[in-house]
Amino acid sequence: MTNKDARTPASVQDETSEEAGKSIGWHKAYIEGTRPDLRVPVRQVHLTNGQAVTLYDTSGPYTDPLVDTDVRRGLSPLRENWIIARGDTEEYAGRPVRPEDDGIKHTSPRGGLRNLDAVFPGRPRQPRRGRGGEAVTQLAYARRGEITPEMEYVAIRENVSPEVVRDEIAAGRAVLPANVNHPEIEPMIIGKRFLVKVNANIGNSAVTSSIEEEVEKMTWATRWGADTVMDLSTGRNIHTTREWVLRNSPVPIGTVPLYQALEKVDGRAEELTWEIYKDTVIEQAEQGVDYMTVHAGVRLPYVPLTANRKTGIVSRGGSIMAAWCLAHHKESFLYENFEELCEILAAYDVTYSLGDGLRPGSIADANDEAQFAELRTLGELNRIAKRFNVQTMIEGPGHVPMHKIKENIDLQQEICDEAPFYTLGPLTTDVAPAYDHITSGIGAAMIAWWGTAMLCYVTPKEHLGLPNRDDVKTGVITYKIAAHAADLAKGHPGAQEWDDALSDARFEFRWEDQFNLALDPDTAREFHDETLPAEPAKTAHFCSMCGPKFCSMKISQDIRREHGGTRAEVEEGMALKSKEFAASGNRVYLPIAD
Amino acid sequence: MTNKDARTPASVQDETSEEAGKSIGWHKAYIEGTRPDLRVPVRQVHLTNGQAVTLYDTSGPYTDPLVDTDVRRGLSPLRENWIIARGDTEEYAGRPVRPEDDGIKHTSPRGGLRNLDAVFPGRPRQPRRGRGGEAVTQLAYARRGEITPEMEYVAIRENVSPEVVRDEIAAGRAVLPANVNHPEIEPMIIGKRFLVKVNANIGNSAVTSSIEEEVEKMTWATRWGADTVMDLSTGRNIHTTREWVLRNSPVPIGTVPLYQALEKVDGRAEELTWEIYKDTVIEQAEQGVDYMTVHAGVRLPYVPLTANRKTGIVSRGGSIMAAWCLAHHKESFLYENFEELCEILAAYDVTYSLGDGLRPGSIADANDEAQFAELRTLGELNRIAKRFNVQTMIEGPGHVPMHKIKENIDLQQEICDEAPFYTLGPLTTDVAPAYDHITSGIGAAMIAWWGTAMLCYVTPKEHLGLPNRDDVKTGVITYKIAAHAADLAKGHPGAQEWDDALSDARFEFRWEDQFNLALDPDTAREFHDETLPAEPAKTAHFCSMCGPKFCSMKISQDIRREHGGTRAEVEEGMALKSKEFAASGNRVYLPIAD
Repeated sequence: MTNKDARTPASVQDETSEEAGKSIGWHKAYIEGTRPDLRVPVRQVHLTNGQAVTLYDTSGPYTDPLVDTDVRRGLSPLRENWIIARGDTEEYAGRPVRPEDDGIKHTSPRGGLRNLDAVFPGRPRQPRRGRGGEAVTQLAYARRGEITPEMEYVAIRENVSPEVVRDEIAAGRAVLPANVNHPEIEPMIIGKRFLVKVNANIGNSAVTSSIEEEVEKMTWATRWGADTVMDLSTGRNIHTTREWVLRNSPVPIGTVPLYQALEKVDGRAEELTWEIYKDTVIEQAEQGVDYMTVHAGVRLPYVPLTANRKTGIVSRGGSIMAAWCLAHHKESFLYENFEELCEILAAYDVTYSLGDGLRPGSIADANDEAQFAELRTLGELNRIAKRFNVQTMIEGPGHVPMHKIKENIDLQQEICDEAPFYTLGPLTTDVAPAYDHITSGIGAAMIAWWGTAMLCYVTPKEHLGLPNRDDVKTGVITYKIAAHAADLAKGHPGAQEWDDALSDARFEFRWEDQFNLALDPDTAREFHDETLPAEPAKTAHFCSMCGPKFCSMKISQDIRREHGGTRAEVEEGMALKSKEFAASGNRVYLPIAD
Repeated sequence: MTNKDARTPASVQDETSEEAGKSIGWHKAYIEGTRPDLRVPVRQVHLTNGQAVTLYDTSGPYTDPLVDTDVRRGLSPLRENWIIARGDTEEYAGRPVRPEDDGIKHTSPRGGLRNLDAVFPGRPRQPRRGRGGEAVTQLAYARRGEITPEMEYVAIRENVSPEVVRDEIAAGRAVLPANVNHPEIEPMIIGKRFLVKVNANIGNSAVTSSIEEEVEKMTWATRWGADTVMDLSTGRNIHTTREWVLRNSPVPIGTVPLYQALEKVDGRAEELTWEIYKDTVIEQAEQGVDYMTVHAGVRLPYVPLTANRKTGIVSRGGSIMAAWCLAHHKESFLYENFEELCEILAAYDVTYSLGDGLRPGSIADANDEAQFAELRTLGELNRIAKRFNVQTMIEGPGHVPMHKIKENIDLQQEICDEAPFYTLGPLTTDVAPAYDHITSGIGAAMIAWWGTAMLCYVTPKEHLGLPNRDDVKTGVITYKIAAHAADLAKGHPGAQEWDDALSDARFEFRWEDQFNLALDPDTAREFHDETLPAEPAKTAHFCSMCGPKFCSMKISQDIRREHGGTRAEVEEGMALKSKEFAASGNRVYLPIAD
């Protein structure tokens, strides 16, 4: 998205020193909206030819040298005044935090909080909710025709009009996840009409990881472009980890409340109850979770449909609910209590991410009866959620060979009234553990082209282990590629300008510009320097792949220089130019020191 | 491809010691054909449940512990007797090797061969060609209805009948690249009816690399699954490097003779002549190059069509020919002399890879007039080549956004009478240098699904530098994923059995089997061990992602165990089972030591 929008150049606020900008080739800038507290961050890449390219920026205040961030204080509550000004919410005492919230129901040799000073030390806060249980959702506002500051914010981010944002939300074709208790976020939107988004999962487990690591993974993921982050922690300190993540996150945070609920019953699925689950949802809503995966579509009669599968039920939430249903021989308590759940979510503006608990876990199981039976139920639940003004997106698979991908998005769009689809991959083959970012990146690009609104990333460690910092980065970059490839294929306005800027830099041998425009400038520069490390090589009119004599770009440029710019000029002047070319010594290469 | 073919189990020759097989989880085996000297290598993966899975194997004799390979002697000439037995070729003195073949036209301070003992020391050999200039091509044989040993060999490899192989070659829908001077290769076939193939590029350049490195890259690439290798060397020692590569390569070798021809005129495109080019083609054909990229479609009138492009001409061969055409204001000498070139290639069974010299080099230039004008000429040349019984495939782009990919394969198939398409990627976006294996892997999977027969790999270093060993591996693995994903989507017989075997291993927590079935067992094992290194973890009924309590596979297995195998059983017995489940203590998890 280069600066072709007439509004952009005038309103960009350059708040970074000249030096900082120059040394890194880009800097953080802001586009101001109709009010001074509405400032949309962008990444401005400064090219060596004097032009600038403006890119979407998910990295939050951490990349702004003028903002003093401190993970112990948390981010500034950007949206707080907007929420208060609406006058439809109230602060209240909130649910007291209990030991079992951190998975410490019984005293155990494993001890309580492993790290007692891990309790978040930031500003004291009380939770907020819709006054009198009112639906304080962006969907409710949009349906009333209101354009909230959040909507204006994403309109600027997406380079569309605020009315488009409002209308897409009102129609249920897009969601703007923004819990009233997470005022720290920079609003973003998820819908097929907008840029394809990427979610990164983090989370500790019983086996490994710590609070500090999870907060760092979150900031690291958003630095590379994650649009939302899901905290899928399942070990100890779930509540506390989430608090740190939320208070420091500039992007919406998603969770699967069932994981924490299960911790509260010591991992015994059959001991789960609606009351424990509901309590957990309220706990998380008060903390500020922006969207929640709810596996309410895993109904009792669908469980037998998985009996002949190759890999059974591979969704954790799905398998927990299936175990509960079978243990009690009862319909799912999530399905049975779905309307009450809608009321709770509406009062905080928590967005539903209706989980696909019966998604396929292998190529063999793709698009089977169990999967699509659940999808039809998600369609039914989506309509109920909309009655309660709860924003809703629908989760999708999983493991699907290429020829079966399109059916997934087409059916989902039809059954779920075009609600945003949010898919995990899909992986297009199962034979490459350690490369599932790639097996799934292929499927992700395709399904996003066909209309999926958000892609849940997959890291190289999928199926093998918990991702570390490097894996998180690789997963995010791979999925940003898939998302951007889809934006291009969908003809998203402005998407191609980024590619064009990089292509121009490549043709003109502006190496520094190529690096700075790259999704991952650091690695691009490092790879170049491995073969041609010297500084002059960064302005050389060739690169190490072909060497000076064989560079097609160089030859192509020389041809253009020798023979004029446009086709007409070339055609008319070719015979003449041919003679001049010979007279000039037939030089298609510059002399290069050997 | 598991061993369901009745022929396979009986005829598999297990020639590896029990120990070797067990220690690595797989071993090399051979399937014998109708004659004792026709033995097709396969990779046999031994599963811990006693079953075995048979996979396609490109790694050559290097992975057979019973074969004593020595890069200074070269591989054994497997096909020599087949070629001699046909009685249609003759040995002859051949063209003497000249200094300029290694890029040493003029004495220069850079010296001659940098490494004089690099001259290949293997067995003396004379080149061979069709007696009296006869076309000794697999196409000619197929058209006569013959099934050569090479055809039988690939039929066994592909698990199809020899007649299918013969008919696809006869129809020009497939090629079996096999120069009579490269008897060392294990025959393979390229065509949409068969498994999608992957090519890996190697080659030194003026800037970097050495002969030893290139030979090692070749064996390394084939070890990970490269089906052919192109030697794109452009620096010194081109002839000698190629000789080493050919004598040691179990896969077909491709080249771009224009690169070497240009070296012979010290990089001055306008000094190229048909005679120098032809001499180079003969030189390489005598050495045994199996297929050659020929940019005969870059015609004079098409050059102006590139004038308004964002990135001009990005094919090296294309830009060299364009420079030549403009310098002389003449039609391409390759186009003008194409029939004579056909006669030469037919006498050695060198396969054409008709180069797309005007392919797009950026998203902006995809599917433009220049590209498709050239494609139409390639269609014309394809028909000429077929008249001369020369096997022919057609090269394709390049840089193409997803929504424009299908048009490429559809047009190519129509214009080129279904000749095999051989594409470079395509890259689906330009914004991710350092990740172009992924940007292009996405496009490669899609275009292969739609009918492309061979994919030219792209490494992470594309656009940045020359690939090293790790990059070669990453490129090959990424492209094997793309190729296999396409095989699945095309419903290639047997393709899914590999995925199924891995999915079964995953569901049953057979970790060692998962690793050994993986495209890259080493990395899969290493990633697993990073989080859970202990040996017991490799038999654990969970993994580090979820820990013991949250493992969906585990829960799903428990459900199946508790509630019976088939859907009917589950449905009938559910109420009863529910009670039993409760009676058993509602245990969905095994107790795990903490």
